[in-house]
Amino acid sequence: MRIAMLAGQTGEWEIAGIRAVRGAGLAAAARLRVVDAALAAYIPAQWRLDGVRSNIRYATAGEVAGLRARQEELGRSAAGCAALIAITKSARWWELAQDERRAIFEETSHHTAIGMEYLPAVARRLYHSRDLGEPFDFLTWFEFAPAHAAAFDELLCRLRASAEWTFVEREVEVRLSRR
Amino acid sequence: MRIAMLAGQTGEWEIAGIRAVRGAGLAAAARLRVVDAALAAYIPAQWRLDGVRSNIRYATAGEVAGLRARQEELGRSAAGCAALIAITKSARWWELAQDERRAIFEETSHHTAIGMEYLPAVARRLYHSRDLGEPFDFLTWFEFAPAHAAAFDELLCRLRASAEWTFVEREVEVRLSRR
Repeated sequence: MRIAMLAGQTGEWEIAGIRAVRGAGLAAAARLRVVDAALAAYIPAQWRLDGVRSNIRYATAGEVAGLRARQEELGRSAAGCAALIAITKSARWWELAQDERRAIFEETSHHTAIGMEYLPAVARRLYHSRDLGEPFDFLTWFEFAPAHAAAFDELLCRLRASAEWTFVEREVEVRLSRR
Repeated sequence: MRIAMLAGQTGEWEIAGIRAVRGAGLAAAARLRVVDAALAAYIPAQWRLDGVRSNIRYATAGEVAGLRARQEELGRSAAGCAALIAITKSARWWELAQDERRAIFEETSHHTAIGMEYLPAVARRLYHSRDLGEPFDFLTWFEFAPAHAAAFDELLCRLRASAEWTFVEREVEVRLSRR
């Protein structure tokens, strides 16, 4: 299903801050909501980012089983904090073969293994945007309780220090709270 | 880039036949063209299928090097025949992890290895459609000289006999000629 993230004057999430980590940022806005893309045209917005949930691209059956055993769904009442990490990777990344990308993603950068350490505290959902012709390749949405905000910061820090992140050419971080 | 395949009264390719191999077919039409999707709204069509060229999903660096060394581009003047194979795979396929799909695709079904045997005679281009919310998951476009039509039939036959094809729940074959 294609979703749209709409930033504007209304929405269930209050935007606490928008930070351009690498490359161009996004305009300031008060609130954000995530809706079915078919409804997005009827909702006024300052900016809109679309994505789709898709099939797994790198994880093995063993890794998927590990994730499913530990991860929790979005929408937990205690998870009052959220973050959107919007990322675009370089042409050099996308020109790599599947085994080359997998090796950087997991064997070198431990992307899934690192994320697993923060389960179930940090719930995560990935939306793919590149094939939609969107400005970002991925929109990753995280939800966690305020008590786990420091752990989430640590997770971000570890991923940004990885070899995989040398292929990130644009990154914007949007921090949100449910109020 | 997102493209649109438009079937109707005009277009550079004459449709020689449309066959529903599995599941629902497509309506008969006289001709077909492939255009930038941004232009498609201005061209009348009986049906339209969209897709995007995307990154490699299964092939390793070694396989990609093998393909690049042998394959030729679309649009060769001698390649008067074309075929569109439009396919949708089952939910069971898409729920598999990456290593499980790769194993069925190549180690069991030899998809890339079989295709390689028909290079450079049969040129091929894959468009991804699933994440666009299209009726098919993939649109694969083939071009070859009339003298290689029997070889192309053999290629189709071998792929359809593979374990990978047990996951295909809809398939339509459109045969075309450039006249």
